[in-house]
Amino acid sequence: MQIQTFFQKRSKSTLSNYFQPFDVIPFNQSGVHNPQEDSISARLLTSYGIVRQAGPGTFHLLPLGLRAQSKLEDLIDGELQKIGCHKIAMPHITSGKLWKKSGRHDLIGPELISFKDRHGKKQVMSPTHEESITSMLATLPFLNARDLPIKLYQTGAKFRDEMRPKFGLIRANEFTMKDLYTFDRNIEDAKTTYESVTRAYRNIFQRLGVPFVVVEGDSGQIGGNISHEYHFPAPIGQDTLMVCKQCGGGRNIELGEREMCGDCGGEVEMSKGIEVGHTFLLGDKYSKPFNAVYKTDSVPISSVLYQMGCYGIGVSRVMAASVEVLSSQTELRWPEAIAPFTVAILTPKGGSMEAAAMGLVDDMQRAVGEMFVDDVIVDDRERLTVGKKLREARKTGYPYVVLFGKKCIDSDPKLELHMLNSNTLLELRPSEVMEHLAIAKQRTGTTK
Amino acid sequence: MQIQTFFQKRSKSTLSNYFQPFDVIPFNQSGVHNPQEDSISARLLTSYGIVRQAGPGTFHLLPLGLRAQSKLEDLIDGELQKIGCHKIAMPHITSGKLWKKSGRHDLIGPELISFKDRHGKKQVMSPTHEESITSMLATLPFLNARDLPIKLYQTGAKFRDEMRPKFGLIRANEFTMKDLYTFDRNIEDAKTTYESVTRAYRNIFQRLGVPFVVVEGDSGQIGGNISHEYHFPAPIGQDTLMVCKQCGGGRNIELGEREMCGDCGGEVEMSKGIEVGHTFLLGDKYSKPFNAVYKTDSVPISSVLYQMGCYGIGVSRVMAASVEVLSSQTELRWPEAIAPFTVAILTPKGGSMEAAAMGLVDDMQRAVGEMFVDDVIVDDRERLTVGKKLREARKTGYPYVVLFGKKCIDSDPKLELHMLNSNTLLELRPSEVMEHLAIAKQRTGTTK
Repeated sequence: MQIQTFFQKRSKSTLSNYFQPFDVIPFNQSGVHNPQEDSISARLLTSYGIVRQAGPGTFHLLPLGLRAQSKLEDLIDGELQKIGCHKIAMPHITSGKLWKKSGRHDLIGPELISFKDRHGKKQVMSPTHEESITSMLATLPFLNARDLPIKLYQTGAKFRDEMRPKFGLIRANEFTMKDLYTFDRNIEDAKTTYESVTRAYRNIFQRLGVPFVVVEGDSGQIGGNISHEYHFPAPIGQDTLMVCKQCGGGRNIELGEREMCGDCGGEVEMSKGIEVGHTFLLGDKYSKPFNAVYKTDSVPISSVLYQMGCYGIGVSRVMAASVEVLSSQTELRWPEAIAPFTVAILTPKGGSMEAAAMGLVDDMQRAVGEMFVDDVIVDDRERLTVGKKLREARKTGYPYVVLFGKKCIDSDPKLELHMLNSNTLLELRPSEVMEHLAIAKQRTGTTK
Repeated sequence: MQIQTFFQKRSKSTLSNYFQPFDVIPFNQSGVHNPQEDSISARLLTSYGIVRQAGPGTFHLLPLGLRAQSKLEDLIDGELQKIGCHKIAMPHITSGKLWKKSGRHDLIGPELISFKDRHGKKQVMSPTHEESITSMLATLPFLNARDLPIKLYQTGAKFRDEMRPKFGLIRANEFTMKDLYTFDRNIEDAKTTYESVTRAYRNIFQRLGVPFVVVEGDSGQIGGNISHEYHFPAPIGQDTLMVCKQCGGGRNIELGEREMCGDCGGEVEMSKGIEVGHTFLLGDKYSKPFNAVYKTDSVPISSVLYQMGCYGIGVSRVMAASVEVLSSQTELRWPEAIAPFTVAILTPKGGSMEAAAMGLVDDMQRAVGEMFVDDVIVDDRERLTVGKKLREARKTGYPYVVLFGKKCIDSDPKLELHMLNSNTLLELRPSEVMEHLAIAKQRTGTTK
């Protein structure tokens, strides 16, 4: 069964020719994983063909994993571009000189991956790009006050030589990061920019729908004055947070313990969190050593240091941590906005009674395909029963699974709609299935 | 002037808040560039704020550069997915062990960038991923003959420690590559796959519209039996090609000189080419050392080595080489399919006579925005004359420039439509401008 009509201009996504290698290796017995360092997300993402470990702390994103990560990138792009951020791409290799200039070469120490090039110059595989972008702005032809603020970001690979990489993509040596850098005239403007990015970050995490907390952060190796961290509460979290029961405000315990909330006096409680985002108001910490300046508009024209901010979201970590929080021990669950495919259609086994409903199967594929374009996958494998297909679809965690079961050949045919994220099963007429999917479509919006 | 109506759900692209730093440094006097190693594309892309050099052979893609490269990626994605390829992302770091296993560690030599991790293990910043993907397939749960062919590709950064990086993105130490790997049952199937990829490659380069030649190639460090190279003929090309005047067939001179064409006996002539793509039928060159096998369907079930192919397109190089071929000494020109924006609208200077045509300006922005969505940029800078805006637009090379000149305030208003790629200027009624743009839209298709 190869229904192609609704994918005329697109590649059709059918499981019969998709690359999703389910693992037959029992949990925790793979040669590559260290069970002590295992997490639900690492285990399930690997076992169900979404991600594959390549080496210590390095991973292949297989087709479904790359789809999920790309959707997350698109979601982030949308929110950042709404506030006037522009996307660029900086090289992964940065000169060791930049890191000496900022003083971070020794500060970061052995986590910094570096090599000597064939001309004997030290080069760094960048874990972050403050030095790189500040140095670029410093060597540009002068920018004017009227050109500010500048808000540039990228999404790409970052490198860190972890002593003990763990939990799959959650603590990896190579990972995908969205990093944004802003440049303002003065510290007041920089604070305004900081607040607008904060709102964008809240929008991003709210659209994702995984519970999160924002706490005062530790500026750590990045430096600066104000900093906030975004965390997904989870037992495997590496950070300990103190969150106020009353106002929801909080801080990282690294800032020191308190019994009461500084903002409202409420009682605080401890929780573990996976850090998924971090924002920093940097001031001139980087613009100063790199002498990154703009020209004032007013006469006499003078050169003034940029006031900077930097803002990171761990894209691959968010993907894995979302799954970590939402999944069961045996089945993946995704935020609806970034599931590899929003809808899966499970067609009847070849030669089964239900295979007689071919016309209906065809109609549904076309209708769903028109609504979700390339965001639907069809499990068209002839040799498998719908029961086996459903088990795989549940493991993979498609938010909406449309199944052609026994009642699809009734005179008033019914299909099964499994809404995995709300753990709901409905038996519905085809038109009713479409109504439910239309609501889902409206909610997930314009992502791929 | 900040017309936002047509970008309600999208970020508006206006030059008043875009990041395109025009360089005031005269050509060839920048501290970073080496004039001996300069090319038209490197010079113009840098001077006009599309790309910025970061270090030896490393570059920032600024917003316009990243847009162009992303469009090219989308174009390639479309053609590869039509033939059933699936996109993945492999880590940039690969274990040194893999490179020793394949024997390429010593073969590639000092161009291979590597470092020792903190556990003393050698790691490579990959220039290509044959070892990585073959090793992944070898460690997967068994795949069946019925699952083949497998066609997996990625688009990402590659690393090479060039002794003498030159010509900007054309010969860089870090560059963007599309690399596809295919796995077939036997050599006949692998040849069929090779031919289908060859057709996809021709479609890609034909859609791009830059003249190209396909020649028999040198298998070089990659190895294998059959190989073809795709070149853009250009004076700065590093390869010398012998191309038949009669049939258009050709070969790289590295394969040895010939006076006659092997296929048709026609006369050959020499030309210089920039290599932009390369395909290899590999056979079991990599599957053998990694013991990458599938299981046969038929009883008795046995394990059989994959027959492989690998296929590369130098994405960042194609972008730069396209510009190299199409541009003049002072103005960028892009293939229409990958220009950073297809359309630029140049609004009248604030306070000018023509500024009275505000209603018309507004209408045109809305109409063009509806047609091209986020593929139009508005030069809305109040302080600049349309003459100055036109000079910048010509330098940047937007294929279609809509200019509100003197006649935009006539009773029967006319606009200027500059079609840069055909060097044509038309004075047209607004409705006629839209007709011309509709034709362009149809041609460039569904790219961003």
